[in-house]
Amino acid sequence: MFNIVLVEPQIPQNTGTIGRLCVNLGATLHLIKPLGFDIDDKAVKRAGLDYWKHLDLVVWESFEAFLKEHPIDEHSYMATTKTDNLYFNAPFKKGDYILFGSETKGIDEKVLLAHPEQCITIPMGGKGRSLNLGVSVGVVIYDALRQNYEGFEKITIPNTLKES
Amino acid sequence: MFNIVLVEPQIPQNTGTIGRLCVNLGATLHLIKPLGFDIDDKAVKRAGLDYWKHLDLVVWESFEAFLKEHPIDEHSYMATTKTDNLYFNAPFKKGDYILFGSETKGIDEKVLLAHPEQCITIPMGGKGRSLNLGVSVGVVIYDALRQNYEGFEKITIPNTLKES
Repeated sequence: MFNIVLVEPQIPQNTGTIGRLCVNLGATLHLIKPLGFDIDDKAVKRAGLDYWKHLDLVVWESFEAFLKEHPIDEHSYMATTKTDNLYFNAPFKKGDYILFGSETKGIDEKVLLAHPEQCITIPMGGKGRSLNLGVSVGVVIYDALRQNYEGFEKITIPNTLKES
Repeated sequence: MFNIVLVEPQIPQNTGTIGRLCVNLGATLHLIKPLGFDIDDKAVKRAGLDYWKHLDLVVWESFEAFLKEHPIDEHSYMATTKTDNLYFNAPFKKGDYILFGSETKGIDEKVLLAHPEQCITIPMGGKGRSLNLGVSVGVVIYDALRQNYEGFEKITIPNTLKES
């Protein structure tokens, strides 16, 4: 449905959480090396719970290799704090690629500057200045789902106690 | 702006992440005991980064004590998998209370059943069946912000490398 792209993620728990999120939405997760952890790290799977094995996962050797195959175009969005384009105004469509930088450094500024109209941001206020990467991905991809909700096959969960 | 209420949260990292999120939105965080961790646990503050100290935090001795002060009404929403009311259709208003159950058992069913019109759910599909608690809170509170964006004072971050 959507493609989530993590550029050089560093923290295994975040990637695990995002994998779990992608399974929930039938999204494909792209991880771009170098990663800050081994993809088989137990922490990834612990955060991904037993959903990790269902994940549609693509691992890329470098950001260049990814961009060669998927150049930034009108179907790509890059999350960054360096724009004023609010994510919920972006006209997301099924199949779009949504890119997120790492927990420590964001997406290469050269790539952002070459495509300013494809940059989106999650507004923050108050005394904050950043969000957890898993939370950021959840906020954006669920808005993409909201905008494209028609036809989404929601599962119905039996009315029993369950993890959340 | 909004009130996030975690009923008996169990995992310190999730509460830390949610605290960081609340600081970003100027939201108040309510924690209802018993907690699965000590509120001074280092893991809470590590996940909350240096934002934790700015958090507007209220700790309640029990769910009953909270409900006595803040009975469920049209300004309260309860997140649960046990409803078909989609969160993005809820008419969130500034000052609303949004309640989330713990990572392991959700909100007391008696309270949910007494107020079915105040129950909201995050749709899930595919092979998933649950989301990380921090992600769930992020998805809902950012939709509440989207619906009430007017007047939100977004911070502008200097164009330098930063954590994300």
